[in-house]
Amino acid sequence: MAVEIERKFLVTGDAWKSGTPTRLSQGYLASSKDSTVRIRLAGDLAWLTIKGPTVGISRAEFEYEIPATDAQQMLDMCEGAIIEKTRWQVSYENLIWEVDEFFGENGGLVVAEIELRSEDQTFAKPDWVGEEVTDDPRYANSNLSVKPFTRWNSS
Amino acid sequence: MAVEIERKFLVTGDAWKSGTPTRLSQGYLASSKDSTVRIRLAGDLAWLTIKGPTVGISRAEFEYEIPATDAQQMLDMCEGAIIEKTRWQVSYENLIWEVDEFFGENGGLVVAEIELRSEDQTFAKPDWVGEEVTDDPRYANSNLSVKPFTRWNSS
Repeated sequence: MAVEIERKFLVTGDAWKSGTPTRLSQGYLASSKDSTVRIRLAGDLAWLTIKGPTVGISRAEFEYEIPATDAQQMLDMCEGAIIEKTRWQVSYENLIWEVDEFFGENGGLVVAEIELRSEDQTFAKPDWVGEEVTDDPRYANSNLSVKPFTRWNSS
Repeated sequence: MAVEIERKFLVTGDAWKSGTPTRLSQGYLASSKDSTVRIRLAGDLAWLTIKGPTVGISRAEFEYEIPATDAQQMLDMCEGAIIEKTRWQVSYENLIWEVDEFFGENGGLVVAEIELRSEDQTFAKPDWVGEEVTDDPRYANSNLSVKPFTRWNSS
């Protein structure tokens, strides 16, 4: 088991775009209050990831590489929409930001995440990093698959 | 992906007991109408298994071996009760019956399953094989974790 400690921010502008992004498709097989089960496909690589409940900004995470053909079939079994995004790895002052640019039903949303070694680790914020949304559950990818960004304004 | 084609029967008596059973603990991380996510631990071996919706008596199944320490931690994240059972492999006329003897909250329940190559495959039934319960969803292990056998008579 790994423990994932992560903070999440909205992104402004596109000054962060550099390098080649990875295209990701991901879906959620099932979610309970205590866990989410994610299928992620990136070209011919795929992973099955189980995450535990969020405690503060930390979360238990179990990740297993699986055959891409399995992932493709399990994406068809997922609840909610499949999330389509490109992920950019952006280096800034010795840390890597993962910037996710969403498409489809989540089009218009761009989010940056930074993984930390401890909950109180300090870090430098690039100019294009905006409002922090770590604690806003709407931005969890498992929730974006159920209520996508383009439908937030509808009741 | 494998396709699991299985028939399930109640078991009478104990003439089937021979050999050494395997002790299994299993739980369900989350279930939706389209999938179940099972953690199974057998001593120092463990598996993560995703099953799709049942169509007739067939079901898509994806199974991955995982570290037993991961399984132990994920069992704590499961919904419902952990299922405790011993599994006996019983050979009868060239087919292997898996006989599950349940304990704890499912104590008193003994079920035999046979895996088939096709839905219409015929097979010989040992004397100790009783009523067929393939189509009774109460006997699905994922349901036994939510409503265990010893509580069926309560409303």
